[in-house]
Amino acid sequence: MLVKSQVKYIQSLSQKKSRDEEGVFIAEGPKIINELLSTPNVAVQQLYAVQEWMAQHSGIAAGGAIEVSEQELERLSLQQTPNQVIGVFKKPVFAKITSYRERLSLMLDTIQDPGNLGTIIRCADWFGIDTVICSRECADVFNPKVVQSTMGSISRVQVMYEDLVAFMQQHADVPAWAATLHGANLHELPPVEGGILVIGNESKGIHEELLRLCRHRITIPRKGQAESLNAAVATGIILSHIVK
Amino acid sequence: MLVKSQVKYIQSLSQKKSRDEEGVFIAEGPKIINELLSTPNVAVQQLYAVQEWMAQHSGIAAGGAIEVSEQELERLSLQQTPNQVIGVFKKPVFAKITSYRERLSLMLDTIQDPGNLGTIIRCADWFGIDTVICSRECADVFNPKVVQSTMGSISRVQVMYEDLVAFMQQHADVPAWAATLHGANLHELPPVEGGILVIGNESKGIHEELLRLCRHRITIPRKGQAESLNAAVATGIILSHIVK
Repeated sequence: MLVKSQVKYIQSLSQKKSRDEEGVFIAEGPKIINELLSTPNVAVQQLYAVQEWMAQHSGIAAGGAIEVSEQELERLSLQQTPNQVIGVFKKPVFAKITSYRERLSLMLDTIQDPGNLGTIIRCADWFGIDTVICSRECADVFNPKVVQSTMGSISRVQVMYEDLVAFMQQHADVPAWAATLHGANLHELPPVEGGILVIGNESKGIHEELLRLCRHRITIPRKGQAESLNAAVATGIILSHIVK
Repeated sequence: MLVKSQVKYIQSLSQKKSRDEEGVFIAEGPKIINELLSTPNVAVQQLYAVQEWMAQHSGIAAGGAIEVSEQELERLSLQQTPNQVIGVFKKPVFAKITSYRERLSLMLDTIQDPGNLGTIIRCADWFGIDTVICSRECADVFNPKVVQSTMGSISRVQVMYEDLVAFMQQHADVPAWAATLHGANLHELPPVEGGILVIGNESKGIHEELLRLCRHRITIPRKGQAESLNAAVATGIILSHIVK
């Protein structure tokens, strides 16, 4: 049985302010939940699951899952189609990064669409990128829509929020590649050993001050007529060409 | 001034049934509207725009645009944030395709998310792919969410709905590449002259019967830990490697 305060607590976590105060986030559905449960750097605070999920996960369920009815799950869920289980997790803990020269990191300038941000994090994870540096104008990585679209990659990719210009100035020795519409042909670029790949806002691109701090500019060659590519698609294409 | 029947008509077009009966679709916002207005194969039926847009497009506005207030635009709009102009357009008309051997086409098996479908069409347009063959389980290309995420590419890319297995059997001479998790390394594939690239449903992939009809299987090499890639991202990556 659910008590009112639990419903209220879960619903409050759709707000960034509450998530920040509590240091937690919400994930939904067996696929993401199972992935988060198996990751050492993400601790579960509470699970709410229907009988079907409980039966399949008796080991976990015995410890810290509350069984709820389908109707109760619906009351808790922030998704359009609730899916068996909802979990409240402590935000992941990552090791401090000591160098940006020997690894490839992503930098995102004002990616505001939660679905795009989540898809980019998932894509980074596919290509073994473990660090994403976001501008403060990006969507919150613990926004439930972002969490869902990372498909679990949120537990493996460290996302930090920084003043991007200040960050670049502090790391002036790190080479940066800016994805733009008028740069060097991506296909002619050798694999990248380390540095930062900068992806801009879809309609406005990378803002001028940040762009000036990027050593290189690269472009995905266009064969047709579309004016631009979706930011997540562009990220995937560039990573598939430059990651060794 | 808007009359009630106009509001009702526009709202009815959020339904596939109404769009099919009327042979029209809706687009919103200056960027897409301007692109559609400049495309010969898409005829405008009616525009509704605020004064700001009218003033900037006096040539068009004089002919067939109805000026509306911001409040009226909000009543008409199917978007969360209405943006200056809404247009009703006749569905685009395309030339009949005579051969699938000499061009590269995309085939989509059950891409149900409207945003993904729109992003894939935009991506196809970027790479000069002008034909997308959808299974009947895919989202409707004239769904307003799809239209918006194509960013205007809907006027340049021909999207057809087919029984994919029957289509493949009828075109048994056309080579097909299936995007799968266990195929040949994409990076080792030579550029493709013509044929069909098949992209599957994100969670279920390409269904078995269709997969059997594909001559080749290709895979995007994974460097990290994510289980899969978003379908639109995967499409972009593959096209960036195989389009000449």
